[in-house]
Amino acid sequence: MIKTLHSQHCHCGWDHSLAPALEVAPGETVSFACRDAADGHFHAHSSAADVATLPFERVNPVCGPLWIEGAEPGDVLKVTLDSFTPSGFGWTANIPGFGLLADQFPDPVLQLWHYDRGGQTPAAFGELARVPLKPFAGTLGVAPAAPGLHSVVPPRRVGGNLDIRDLAAGTSLYLPVEVAGALFSIGDTHAAQGDGEVCGTAIETAMAVTATFELIKQQPLAMPRFSTPGPVTRHLDGAGYEVFTGVGPDLLAAARMAVSGAIDWLGQTRNLPAEQAYLLCSVCGDLRISEIVDVPNWVVGFYFPRIVFE
Amino acid sequence: MIKTLHSQHCHCGWDHSLAPALEVAPGETVSFACRDAADGHFHAHSSAADVATLPFERVNPVCGPLWIEGAEPGDVLKVTLDSFTPSGFGWTANIPGFGLLADQFPDPVLQLWHYDRGGQTPAAFGELARVPLKPFAGTLGVAPAAPGLHSVVPPRRVGGNLDIRDLAAGTSLYLPVEVAGALFSIGDTHAAQGDGEVCGTAIETAMAVTATFELIKQQPLAMPRFSTPGPVTRHLDGAGYEVFTGVGPDLLAAARMAVSGAIDWLGQTRNLPAEQAYLLCSVCGDLRISEIVDVPNWVVGFYFPRIVFE
Repeated sequence: MIKTLHSQHCHCGWDHSLAPALEVAPGETVSFACRDAADGHFHAHSSAADVATLPFERVNPVCGPLWIEGAEPGDVLKVTLDSFTPSGFGWTANIPGFGLLADQFPDPVLQLWHYDRGGQTPAAFGELARVPLKPFAGTLGVAPAAPGLHSVVPPRRVGGNLDIRDLAAGTSLYLPVEVAGALFSIGDTHAAQGDGEVCGTAIETAMAVTATFELIKQQPLAMPRFSTPGPVTRHLDGAGYEVFTGVGPDLLAAARMAVSGAIDWLGQTRNLPAEQAYLLCSVCGDLRISEIVDVPNWVVGFYFPRIVFE
Repeated sequence: MIKTLHSQHCHCGWDHSLAPALEVAPGETVSFACRDAADGHFHAHSSAADVATLPFERVNPVCGPLWIEGAEPGDVLKVTLDSFTPSGFGWTANIPGFGLLADQFPDPVLQLWHYDRGGQTPAAFGELARVPLKPFAGTLGVAPAAPGLHSVVPPRRVGGNLDIRDLAAGTSLYLPVEVAGALFSIGDTHAAQGDGEVCGTAIETAMAVTATFELIKQQPLAMPRFSTPGPVTRHLDGAGYEVFTGVGPDLLAAARMAVSGAIDWLGQTRNLPAEQAYLLCSVCGDLRISEIVDVPNWVVGFYFPRIVFE
């Protein structure tokens, strides 16, 4: 019998003084009903104008907290992500002031998605592209030891808004526990995202998630780590990539150059308006660090998968 | 009839005043005999002590320059990498003062490799691991417009020491031309490398490379870009990954954390000495930027492929 945390058991931000919504023993599996990152603000008739009324105080609600029996500071919580059941409706937005190229894209943009809940069919990006799906949780973590309410936006040592695309079905995530009971929460579920999440949003979508919890007692862990059950980009890589580089002494600036190259290319070769290209890059393109040793210039590559046009 | 540039046609550093070693028309294919990055300094009986006598003035010789008829500033040179024929002998070194974790690894280390020239068999890393091969050119570029001799170490807008693992067989690289004739050179061939080249060297190896050159007249190109013929990590991804993260406001620091996590894990689970783990990470592990938007903390992941232990 799987225990369930329903969607009313959600909170915004991290705070170890929050009362647990559910208690489980190590080895148990829990089903979480995750709201989407805009807490249901967008619907099938939403438009870019609705981005302006996004309720920031309700952004990125996470489902929890879950108390793990016996968890103590210094332990490691192993979270195995068993399954994801997305809703079939999603959104991607450019939110003014947020995103890697926020200075270049000051206006709100909204893209709605209606996709196959089974995840087998790529999601249509209008008539321009089809994006392969790989559902995962963008935000999952345990409560930090530091008291008070901590913003949900930045990820931390204890996890949180990691936005790691490969925290998908079958992956096990290891998190350092900082407080008694660990106090695990999860949300910000995404139907698809590229490495980087460059525009600041993915295919944001409500989703049911099941996960199994285990405890490793008193093991040092400086930062989150995870183990994937197999390859991580097979849904994207079949047709190869168009890759755009940024070269220079600052990785952030190099990443901006690389993504800009992709946006320019999508405009030149596919007549894609720049703001549409930016959103498409965010949901399917991957940022990689090609070299980080040839002083003083590093190379960042933005890998755009050609499969979205096939 | 393929034209050939033999290994004596090499130079160290970039300088547009160097006389061309060969002239070709657009559409022609050239075979390059590339020396290894240490210009033959290491051999089958070399040891870590030989790292100290590495002749820095001869490091990273490139084969060229090649004059492309009709190339002018503002053009784009398309270089299709047709084939790589590695020598079967290679080396990986920790060179004091060089590499992502240079502060943590002050001593010279040398690993020698004897591998299958056909590239079908992974290269043995002692009895500890087997590294899948994917031969490519670490350094390839055209001459910069700025006069004088420019160090071969940093990559630039015109290419050079890009160390992009996916510049392998079948890939087409596009480079902005800055001088008449373009003056293309290539070298620093690697039998295998992970994204990042974290210890500063790959499986460094002499290699014959064939490439075909085409010219695109007067097209704007800010930074190098490339097109891969298919997937880029299939040689590594079959058994999944152990992934280590770094979370924080600086991507370089986050990358250092992530690689450190992998080195610690290789020590704990495989008894691999840290300096050996560092070298192994450099030849097979990939640095990815998982998210670059959740202010103020970014996430870098270091993807270590489990296939090397299978």
